Amino acid sequence: MKQDLLTIEDLDRKEIEEILHKAKEFCERRERNDLRGGVLASCFFEPSTRTRLSFETAMLRLGGSVIGFSEAGSTSSQKGEILEDTMRVVGSFADVIVLRHFEAGAAKKAAKATKTPVVNAGDGANEHPSQTLVDLFTVWISQGKIDGLRLAIMGDLKYGRTVHSLVKALSLYQVKIDFVSPKELTLPEDLKEMLKGKDVACSYHEDIEAAIKDADVVYTTRVQKERLQGEVLHHRYVLKKEMLAGCRHNMKILHPLPRVDELDREIDHTPFAYYFEQAQYGVPVRMALLASLLKKEKI
Amino acid sequence: MKQDLLTIEDLDRKEIEEILHKAKEFCERRERNDLRGGVLASCFFEPSTRTRLSFETAMLRLGGSVIGFSEAGSTSSQKGEILEDTMRVVGSFADVIVLRHFEAGAAKKAAKATKTPVVNAGDGANEHPSQTLVDLFTVWISQGKIDGLRLAIMGDLKYGRTVHSLVKALSLYQVKIDFVSPKELTLPEDLKEMLKGKDVACSYHEDIEAAIKDADVVYTTRVQKERLQGEVLHHRYVLKKEMLAGCRHNMKILHPLPRVDELDREIDHTPFAYYFEQAQYGVPVRMALLASLLKKEKI
Amino acid sequence: MKQDLLTIEDLDRKEIEEILHKAKEFCERRERNDLRGGVLASCFFEPSTRTRLSFETAMLRLGGSVIGFSEAGSTSSQKGEILEDTMRVVGSFADVIVLRHFEAGAAKKAAKATKTPVVNAGDGANEHPSQTLVDLFTVWISQGKIDGLRLAIMGDLKYGRTVHSLVKALSLYQVKIDFVSPKELTLPEDLKEMLKGKDVACSYHEDIEAAIKDADVVYTTRVQKERLQGEVLHHRYVLKKEMLAGCRHNMKILHPLPRVDELDREIDHTPFAYYFEQAQYGVPVRMALLASLLKKEKI
Repeated sequence: MKQDLLTIEDLDRKEIEEILHKAKEFCERRERNDLRGGVLASCFFEPSTRTRLSFETAMLRLGGSVIGFSEAGSTSSQKGEILEDTMRVVGSFADVIVLRHFEAGAAKKAAKATKTPVVNAGDGANEHPSQTLVDLFTVWISQGKIDGLRLAIMGDLKYGRTVHSLVKALSLYQVKIDFVSPKELTLPEDLKEMLKGKDVACSYHEDIEAAIKDADVVYTTRVQKERLQGEVLHHRYVLKKEMLAGCRHNMKILHPLPRVDELDREIDHTPFAYYFEQAQYGVPVRMALLASLLKKEKI
Repeated sequence: MKQDLLTIEDLDRKEIEEILHKAKEFCERRERNDLRGGVLASCFFEPSTRTRLSFETAMLRLGGSVIGFSEAGSTSSQKGEILEDTMRVVGSFADVIVLRHFEAGAAKKAAKATKTPVVNAGDGANEHPSQTLVDLFTVWISQGKIDGLRLAIMGDLKYGRTVHSLVKALSLYQVKIDFVSPKELTLPEDLKEMLKGKDVACSYHEDIEAAIKDADVVYTTRVQKERLQGEVLHHRYVLKKEMLAGCRHNMKILHPLPRVDELDREIDHTPFAYYFEQAQYGVPVRMALLASLLKKEKI
Repeated sequence: MKQDLLTIEDLDRKEIEEILHKAKEFCERRERNDLRGGVLASCFFEPSTRTRLSFETAMLRLGGSVIGFSEAGSTSSQKGEILEDTMRVVGSFADVIVLRHFEAGAAKKAAKATKTPVVNAGDGANEHPSQTLVDLFTVWISQGKIDGLRLAIMGDLKYGRTVHSLVKALSLYQVKIDFVSPKELTLPEDLKEMLKGKDVACSYHEDIEAAIKDADVVYTTRVQKERLQGEVLHHRYVLKKEMLAGCRHNMKILHPLPRVDELDREIDHTPFAYYFEQAQYGVPVRMALLASLLKKEKI
């Protein structure tokens, strides 16, 4: 395994599956002392309750401890310090850095600046690889497998970093993917090209209904109103309970959360809803990730 | 004991007294490992140094650890997420949630959304039950008993949530209460009604002096200037050293803090001042509360 | 050793050297349990990533835990509470307080208000004694000694609190100091006077080049543009790689960081750069300081 996790492409299929299996163990044993004495630096230059708290919980449940900040306002970047300097210094305090930054490419910059392992917890519209591990784990646990599944991925496929990372990871598996988005927010060309060389059967849709009917997993993301012209279009990408009538019985809906109104709350009480389980898996998956990254480190 | 502590009415007198006795033990033994491996989520949607830090210290001294946030700005509520979603997710990470929120009823909403125990650390003008446990403990420790005491409660009795919770708790005891407030800020009618059926002798005053003369305990709170017409009235509800001349020797002054100018600093050096002891008891009382809430939980 | 560390003058040379030697041990053994069960209150009324995170890491690596806040916004000072009240209450929760405040003299006020040890982590333009311990440690480790060295100290000598504390500490040693600054930002008169009675040979310069040629250590600080008239002057106090041509081979450059542009990034890759090591030493030095301050305390 590489030292840093900057993009999901830093992991091969074997490494991903080791993490998924380890995460499954952590689901049963919530407390461990694998990382006793270790310090995680939780560096969030923009707020993210879910990602930050699940990483911090993971470190604490592994017996380690946490330093950090939850927004840029309480850092020296306010005084004009460049990211590389901050990361080099924080890296000399901590055993691992978890970085959320508003700028695409920030994680790569950080990893260059410090010898301490850096985990990219979201950098602009670029990547969010630990979320992808959580997504894959949720797919796997909910369906018992990944190969052979049919997934519908819907919403803002152009700017959504969780979608970008997830698609790269799924390209390591034999799956069918139905992409659903307005024309303006379709998957970037480079990802479409990449998929052509893989064992993935892709099709592209503008309508939700067609795609979710045969799906084992429906992965939804938010379509920001500002990115579309008109309310009407926006409403076409809201998932509603009545749309789920003809779905497969094993179908599960995933969403990286937070949601606003793209996922009707009435769905919460159906057996299809699986996004809160997905959020919960954030802790065991990140425990597995941290344990894997740091096992060779002398803490 | 119920799963959540949303209002002081969630506890009966026996349960309250078990917590008070446990808190007394914790005053002597500051460190324990009762909650080793446990994680407390400290969710403060509005700042509160005292309440937040005493809960966090309590958890840490019990051997547990803490995740959380200290203001709404660093949460997903900024992105439009509703409280229920945040609580359900955070509840799936942590073993207990401590919630401070600016909205009355927020704690109840949170408890509905998650199976994890929720402690209300103040929700708008509604309740603040852990503060009441601290207040009761301070009354008990300073006087050796609660039954039989005479208390003066003064300040903003209309909007003060610590007063509302305290009055409900005191209604379980045989006490005399002198309520002191400007007419505009008197105790809400429903609380006055409730007291009529209890073993509590109440009287209502507009003047401080009359009420504090025979009091064993004087419980003061801030009267916000904005709530009164004119400075003059405001000054009538400032407690000054010279007012304490004829008081009982055992009399102790309590205040939930922070104070601004409603409690003259000259009083700090008199034997009547007991509000800093009260603040300090925040830790052992909250240790007792957390230990009681979580003892049956598998952490 | 005194109870609090408010100014570097609270320590004599023997006590300083005990801390330096202990810090050297901590460089090798990163984890210890000396302060297990202890709670450090990290009270930062203004942000400071470096100082805050190094103190918190130090406490955690010693087995203790941390409560606190990283900016004034999430404290009761917003509600009008005076510093003394906040410190007295926080002091009753924690075993040691680390205080950063924007006001000169704040640390002294805090120490008066609470019996709990207070460490001044920077109070306005006044002092920053733990940074001085880090600076001294870095000088000592990089040169193998302090007595007999020649140091150039440059930048804003008038308002720079790290310079003030460092000069006081160096006055306990036999050193030569070349002070370099624009006329407007020269060392305060009282410090100049103080140095006259000591074993320190001082000279004062306006030009960088002359002073750094014979220096063993060059200590640079930022000159804020607002404090000088005109860009030209500002640029004269930027350290550049080409200036280092004729320097001593053992010369090391120190800087308390964060830097903006007063220290050219090209220097980072020369053997003279030692400011990131200096930042890293923040943890072992603060471990030594906390262990020394708290060893007699019953935690």
